[in-house]
Amino acid sequence: MDERLKKQLDFILEIDKEKNILRQTHLSGNGRRENDAEHAWHMAIMAYLLREYSNEEIDIAKVMLMCLIHDIVEIEAGDTYAYDEEGLATQKDREEAAKEKLYSILPGDQKAELTALFDEFEESETPEAKFAHAMDNLQPLLLNNSNGGSDWREHQVTAAQVYARQGKTRQGSEVLYEVTDQILKEHIRKGNLRE
Amino acid sequence: MDERLKKQLDFILEIDKEKNILRQTHLSGNGRRENDAEHAWHMAIMAYLLREYSNEEIDIAKVMLMCLIHDIVEIEAGDTYAYDEEGLATQKDREEAAKEKLYSILPGDQKAELTALFDEFEESETPEAKFAHAMDNLQPLLLNNSNGGSDWREHQVTAAQVYARQGKTRQGSEVLYEVTDQILKEHIRKGNLRE
Repeated sequence: MDERLKKQLDFILEIDKEKNILRQTHLSGNGRRENDAEHAWHMAIMAYLLREYSNEEIDIAKVMLMCLIHDIVEIEAGDTYAYDEEGLATQKDREEAAKEKLYSILPGDQKAELTALFDEFEESETPEAKFAHAMDNLQPLLLNNSNGGSDWREHQVTAAQVYARQGKTRQGSEVLYEVTDQILKEHIRKGNLRE
Repeated sequence: MDERLKKQLDFILEIDKEKNILRQTHLSGNGRRENDAEHAWHMAIMAYLLREYSNEEIDIAKVMLMCLIHDIVEIEAGDTYAYDEEGLATQKDREEAAKEKLYSILPGDQKAELTALFDEFEESETPEAKFAHAMDNLQPLLLNNSNGGSDWREHQVTAAQVYARQGKTRQGSEVLYEVTDQILKEHIRKGNLRE
């Protein structure tokens, strides 16, 4: 087999492992914990269906691909919970090393392309990256909301912590931030989110 | 909340159930059974990385979206194993009813758009649909190959059955069909696929 194709297939097999990286979010219906591949699949479809609410014009193919690959580094670096202060302190270094290791399996041009796309997501400055971040926030919020806020209760998350994170949603979509705000206020009222 | 956005969010929550639809394929490393959402995520990334091998020019954003949504009907219709003759006989009717029920949750324009995209995939006549089908075949084949062909052995699948299905891969990509053919010949030689 051609060397280029072999590298591509090796990478494709390697990322199968993303299906084993568990998140703190639970599936709707108070189901089991979600994994990164499921989360990314959900985000990419959401991005397509909700693209009309982006604050800025976006290249939707780019956003979808960004959503699909944004957590591949977690195969090596592990998932870092959004409200795990200790984990967040080392997240950047762990993910940089993982990025180099994993994307080096690909042919050089595709390594460069996917690395750049991941970096663009992380920097969160382009319209596409901002909208992808809005999806990254909204997706678990919708599941958690459907489960009565149980993920927040389990981790004793505070409203201030959640709101700090939702600033990124607002940068991507004012409309979806409004929905988020309504949902959060309801959970604060019910005591699912600590004040 | 706006009625349109409410419908979109309802659909987004509904498709969370796709993560509970199990396939016959096992994850690499002889892991657990794969679910439809993971399979679709994997296919969409594969489509992007392997697009240079498509027989015809393709709109890759369309292929990726097709991959992401092609199994949503299985939330209602269930997964039909590729070599389950009985299931295959009723698959079309079950999936048509499921399609109507599920996509009706969306606003009318998005229902029409996603229904048309699903139909295009099913008809397998456009370059995009053919390439998406190649991914639908290649993705489980790569996992099964990494597991020593255990899924074929478990179901006592014959080489003729697998080759009949791979005709669709060839329509999408001659290059990827060649790889498939090499892999299958090796499994026949080792007795993992019955002659």
